Amino acid sequence: MRALVYGAQGLALEHDHPQPQPGEGEALIRIMQAGICNTDLEITRGYKGFQGVLGHEFVGVVEAIQGLDARGQYSHLLGQRVVGEINIPCRGAQCWYCRQGIYSHCPRRAALGIVGRDGAFADYLTLPVENLHLVSDEVCDEEAVFVEPLAANFEMLEQVHITPGMRMLVLGDGKMGQLAAQVLALSGGEVWMTGKHEEKLALARKRGIVTQTVAETERLVQEGERLDLLVECTGSEQGLDMALRLVRPRGTIVLKSTVAEKGALDLSRIVVNEIRVQGSRCGPFEPALRALRQKHIDVGPLVSVRYAFEDAVEAFRQAEQKGMLKILLKMH
Amino acid sequence: MRALVYGAQGLALEHDHPQPQPGEGEALIRIMQAGICNTDLEITRGYKGFQGVLGHEFVGVVEAIQGLDARGQYSHLLGQRVVGEINIPCRGAQCWYCRQGIYSHCPRRAALGIVGRDGAFADYLTLPVENLHLVSDEVCDEEAVFVEPLAANFEMLEQVHITPGMRMLVLGDGKMGQLAAQVLALSGGEVWMTGKHEEKLALARKRGIVTQTVAETERLVQEGERLDLLVECTGSEQGLDMALRLVRPRGTIVLKSTVAEKGALDLSRIVVNEIRVQGSRCGPFEPALRALRQKHIDVGPLVSVRYAFEDAVEAFRQAEQKGMLKILLKMH
Repeated sequence: MRALVYGAQGLALEHDHPQPQPGEGEALIRIMQAGICNTDLEITRGYKGFQGVLGHEFVGVVEAIQGLDARGQYSHLLGQRVVGEINIPCRGAQCWYCRQGIYSHCPRRAALGIVGRDGAFADYLTLPVENLHLVSDEVCDEEAVFVEPLAANFEMLEQVHITPGMRMLVLGDGKMGQLAAQVLALSGGEVWMTGKHEEKLALARKRGIVTQTVAETERLVQEGERLDLLVECTGSEQGLDMALRLVRPRGTIVLKSTVAEKGALDLSRIVVNEIRVQGSRCGPFEPALRALRQKHIDVGPLVSVRYAFEDAVEAFRQAEQKGMLKILLKMH
Repeated sequence: MRALVYGAQGLALEHDHPQPQPGEGEALIRIMQAGICNTDLEITRGYKGFQGVLGHEFVGVVEAIQGLDARGQYSHLLGQRVVGEINIPCRGAQCWYCRQGIYSHCPRRAALGIVGRDGAFADYLTLPVENLHLVSDEVCDEEAVFVEPLAANFEMLEQVHITPGMRMLVLGDGKMGQLAAQVLALSGGEVWMTGKHEEKLALARKRGIVTQTVAETERLVQEGERLDLLVECTGSEQGLDMALRLVRPRGTIVLKSTVAEKGALDLSRIVVNEIRVQGSRCGPFEPALRALRQKHIDVGPLVSVRYAFEDAVEAFRQAEQKGMLKILLKMH
């Protein structure tokens, strides 16, 4: 099969990559479309030391299930379109996280296309059936590719009680920032976005988000403006520093970007103002699917370019350009 | 009156300091005892740029109330022992924090003996009557001095849902760490403490806390031990670093010490493990008073030395020595 492989020689589209064989309780999935995420780009710069087939945002069709259980619990997935959670936990009886269903934090987990498991930039992938979620007809392939990053933003609502009276600011106008702002806006609260790209800020404005440049936000800080919730989606130290200066006492900062490795935090400000700094990663798929089905979230305008899978290497180069939003790969 | 004043010439016990006059709605309080806090020591090293009468942990007797309101709402305090909240908010109709009763975060607040208001190391102080809490007979003067720092630890329970199933570790065996550990232990959960002073760790052990040296804790980190809640009471960067390595995925780190000004946090660890970092400062007085009344908290062993107020300067020097717990000053 075809597969976009990151290895010692860099990134290459292989045409004779061995097709993965589903293990017991796993599904073989034919990929329809997949999305390039910043994490994929990071991996090609050495993040996690992963080598193999990249990709973890996908929609595909279940072609086979190995060892379908006697109850036929997952047989309804055969032939259907699915999206898949990317963490593959150990599900061991001794694992505290797995026993509690906190699979995304199992210390022995693999992660599709990131750690210990070939990913979605290929004709086929395999995943445990428990990871799969049926995609209903109201959600098209292109939308379904966004379920994984959208779920990661719904995770904020699992962690922080977002209320309609809140004023919130998303720092960063990229893919993550756009999804974060749309999810926060579902609360009924006032959502602002700060970014550097007028065309991306314009997309947010169409969704009722109040947008600003970095300079305008800096001026608001000087004028004493303070907000209830800040979401850091820039991955830069400056973003976090601005968040700390903009958040109100007893407010919350959600950290969404894994890019910044180390940051000097003004700890005394966190203590004196009793700030909550909340890390946030993967999230629940079903709320993301519901929101897409009910048309509460609009991901269409977030697609910058669509590529045939044959041009995957070029698509990657494109994704590395500044100003890009989502780049999609079409396999089938 | 007598007052321990920090000024341009350093720390001095003045004998002819002018007695403060209560403003409208304020009480004049005769100080019985007061406690020396690390914040007092920090101020004599330049923290907050404060000059004036130091001290904010006290118990005293209400001698007069200026402009007692028509309803006589606070008249029952006259002649009674009280403790006092240290933040003096603006209570303005336009103040978002004051309108919501979040007085400790009013941006125009003064703070007793810390910002814009003379403190408790004196024969008398004044405070708004709204700041005062009656001390019942079951709580002696020495215990009452601990209400303010104890309340600051009950603040953790307002912020984080502490449950009986949790395993928690307090980093630091000083005054703050000792109170934090006792408060956390009320949850029924398992509480550990890491510290450098065997005699202080022994105090914690008497309260059922499991104690460890730093080396022992470091070994637990290496062995993969992870805990639900970490409370940073060391004020050192190493403490925070250890907390980040010890906290379990989806766990919480409470920052209690304002000493560390800047710290390099491993931000990607916070995001990937979805850690919550929660700053925590002042807290509710009534729960602290109730806990002392019901003898759930034992502060007696936390007193290192008692000084007559005449020896206040020497008491300060003593408080600066390593290994000290609470130093008390007795005024009346």
